[in-house]
Amino acid sequence: MKPRFKHLLGIEGLDRSDILTILDQARTFREVLDRPIPVVPALRGKTVVNLFFEASTRTATSFQLAASRLSAQCVNFSRTASSVSKGETLLDTARNIEAMRAEGIIIRHSMPGAPHFLARHVRAFVVNAGDGAHEHPTQALLDAFTLRDKLGDLKGRRILIVGDIAHSRVARSNVFCFTRLGAKVAVCGPPTLIPRYCEELGCEVFCRIDRVLYEVDVVNMLRVQQERIGVWCLPTLREYRELYGLTAERLKKLAPDVVVTHPGPVNWGVEMDFDVAEFPQALIMSQVTNGVAVRMAVLYLLAGGEQTP
Amino acid sequence: MKPRFKHLLGIEGLDRSDILTILDQARTFREVLDRPIPVVPALRGKTVVNLFFEASTRTATSFQLAASRLSAQCVNFSRTASSVSKGETLLDTARNIEAMRAEGIIIRHSMPGAPHFLARHVRAFVVNAGDGAHEHPTQALLDAFTLRDKLGDLKGRRILIVGDIAHSRVARSNVFCFTRLGAKVAVCGPPTLIPRYCEELGCEVFCRIDRVLYEVDVVNMLRVQQERIGVWCLPTLREYRELYGLTAERLKKLAPDVVVTHPGPVNWGVEMDFDVAEFPQALIMSQVTNGVAVRMAVLYLLAGGEQTP
Amino acid sequence: MKPRFKHLLGIEGLDRSDILTILDQARTFREVLDRPIPVVPALRGKTVVNLFFEASTRTATSFQLAASRLSAQCVNFSRTASSVSKGETLLDTARNIEAMRAEGIIIRHSMPGAPHFLARHVRAFVVNAGDGAHEHPTQALLDAFTLRDKLGDLKGRRILIVGDIAHSRVARSNVFCFTRLGAKVAVCGPPTLIPRYCEELGCEVFCRIDRVLYEVDVVNMLRVQQERIGVWCLPTLREYRELYGLTAERLKKLAPDVVVTHPGPVNWGVEMDFDVAEFPQALIMSQVTNGVAVRMAVLYLLAGGEQTP
Repeated sequence: MKPRFKHLLGIEGLDRSDILTILDQARTFREVLDRPIPVVPALRGKTVVNLFFEASTRTATSFQLAASRLSAQCVNFSRTASSVSKGETLLDTARNIEAMRAEGIIIRHSMPGAPHFLARHVRAFVVNAGDGAHEHPTQALLDAFTLRDKLGDLKGRRILIVGDIAHSRVARSNVFCFTRLGAKVAVCGPPTLIPRYCEELGCEVFCRIDRVLYEVDVVNMLRVQQERIGVWCLPTLREYRELYGLTAERLKKLAPDVVVTHPGPVNWGVEMDFDVAEFPQALIMSQVTNGVAVRMAVLYLLAGGEQTP
Repeated sequence: MKPRFKHLLGIEGLDRSDILTILDQARTFREVLDRPIPVVPALRGKTVVNLFFEASTRTATSFQLAASRLSAQCVNFSRTASSVSKGETLLDTARNIEAMRAEGIIIRHSMPGAPHFLARHVRAFVVNAGDGAHEHPTQALLDAFTLRDKLGDLKGRRILIVGDIAHSRVARSNVFCFTRLGAKVAVCGPPTLIPRYCEELGCEVFCRIDRVLYEVDVVNMLRVQQERIGVWCLPTLREYRELYGLTAERLKKLAPDVVVTHPGPVNWGVEMDFDVAEFPQALIMSQVTNGVAVRMAVLYLLAGGEQTP
Repeated sequence: MKPRFKHLLGIEGLDRSDILTILDQARTFREVLDRPIPVVPALRGKTVVNLFFEASTRTATSFQLAASRLSAQCVNFSRTASSVSKGETLLDTARNIEAMRAEGIIIRHSMPGAPHFLARHVRAFVVNAGDGAHEHPTQALLDAFTLRDKLGDLKGRRILIVGDIAHSRVARSNVFCFTRLGAKVAVCGPPTLIPRYCEELGCEVFCRIDRVLYEVDVVNMLRVQQERIGVWCLPTLREYRELYGLTAERLKKLAPDVVVTHPGPVNWGVEMDFDVAEFPQALIMSQVTNGVAVRMAVLYLLAGGEQTP
């Protein structure tokens, strides 16, 4: 089955069956990653381009590995200050990439909507790898994949997202993704940093973590953007940890079957104490592995692959 | 047929038949790029190195894709301030690249003649990807390829090159290339920026664009080096546009079969108004695609391939 | 035969037979590099990661080529100031690389022991590509390979290492490697820069190069770290050259069968005059070529290859 969507710009535009199409495909590729030679020839001879306007070695590498596991070629076309100062527009850059015969463009940009702008103007498929505080759809998909792998169907599961919800593209994509899959999502963070879409999508809202932490199936911690501490209504690091952190003390009180996720990289000692790294139900490393499989699925489906190669 | 040249250092050293050898080979590879799997095994197991001392994501990526379409490996060996400050000479770097068993070196350097220096001291083949204000031969070849693709034989065709001729390596390579192919070349720019070689090669020289624009078959606009505006006898951006720009107004007055080229990236609103992007006879994106095919031909021939693989 | 070691952290932990296992395997791969298509499918589908915290285009490229000649994939995961400032620990980075399913990690770090730390915490194999002033084992192995290729068995051969011994990881790895192979090693440098391990391993120590230079079989010059000149007991460049440099004058007095090595890049005119570059017994470029073969052997053996594929 071919996907109904030509690009992956965000989770907001997908319905439950779109999401399941990607996750089912990712299941196949997750098994490929466990083979002694974890490569399939699905996209041999195809080229995708990593167009990253913000530094991100992790996400860029994950897409690069995903392309390579599909036998596709991935070219890094990272844009530094110098090239932007040459006065080239985003559109010029994208048209050039397309003219060089790349089938797909993976874009990270600080400006919300930059991937959508590209998608309107090029024939190549576009994958949003993070646009400002807007969306980060492959992160949401890999989180959903990881949780379904551990817990089965998410219908009725209670998932708590903790942190600076308003400025987090991960939070936004995850709220859309988890609610579309039938989960009951709660968000917890400084009250001025709870955006309106949370209530519109039926999320419960909490300002104190201890009021909700011990009643959920999943704790999805967000990374603290340290440059926002002390401004944007975020308290000091010490206060943040006390109010919203998954401390060793709170960890001990969690039910043994609760699972913990985090998009990485973790600020150990801020949003999570290092004890979480040794917590058997922390799925952080599984998230990284599954991220490669999910990105393989996205590239494969957008490049025109039939489901289950 | 093997090429008579071991390196591609500039157009100046090539004659008409050398140029046609490359362009004919590029024709074959241009068709490869339209295949569903645009790859040939011509250079499997061979390695070329991108040795760029000036930032240029576009040209570097184009060579990288060209290598990859030939199944060759392309290693980026970009030299930053730090490595140059380690005191390594150009010759040391090149000898190292050769000792690592790379078959070819693609070099961009701010110093005119740097590729020629390399070619005298290494056994690997050398491709000039731009040396200061001297030559940029693959740009000239892709321009010629694009024009021949559109117009057929260039013999007797009138081609106008507009801009800061003296400081442009594209202009210099293009004047050599177009005249060798029998075209009648005119140049237009600030009178103090018309170098002597133009007249020696029989170019007509114009200081006002409106005197010649409506009588030519091809308008080849150059990129304004904005860092030169206000110095080097270049006027302000506003004056530049009025005197030498391909404005919307001038565009309307062009004959419908005139074609427009530009090496990119364009300073929209300076040397060309954005209207040109939508002009059906603007070949800027074709130039980019053809650039990959031309660079495939250059790498293939210099690596010892027989013509028409 | 499989190697007894899981990682390559240093030469100190290897015995003579470990070293010979690697060098014998490298011999096979050195022949591969002379084939028209210098590639073997030994590690098809495997991925290694270059994790470089210090800039080093040469060593990183050499590992990258080695991986590629084995049909493995090599991903560069270089860590800039920005990513370190994001607060990610070395362990987090390594666990992420492993979770992305890389089989091996090649690490360069300014901190001695960083590779050992990694090796204790990840399942992937770890190759030390230089850790502070501690070890640089692949350099020692390629030096040994190059000398054995030229001179045969090193047993009883006199090898002189000249320079700032105390701060050189190359010196440290080479002293271990050459003594394990039965050579008689002498070191020469400023007396305050001769570390204790030299005498413990039975090296002769010289403070004046002319006292020993004309009695040895091999002269292994070290690179002057120019940032240390004037501090750390190193004299000015002029004095350094006079006291420890392989000058044109000294070169003329060398016996014709003495060989000269240097890890590169050379500070011409400081530790060696440019005349050495033309000296027939200078093996500097062979070292670079052999470096690819030695790194192929290391990656191949650590990735689980049986000896002689």
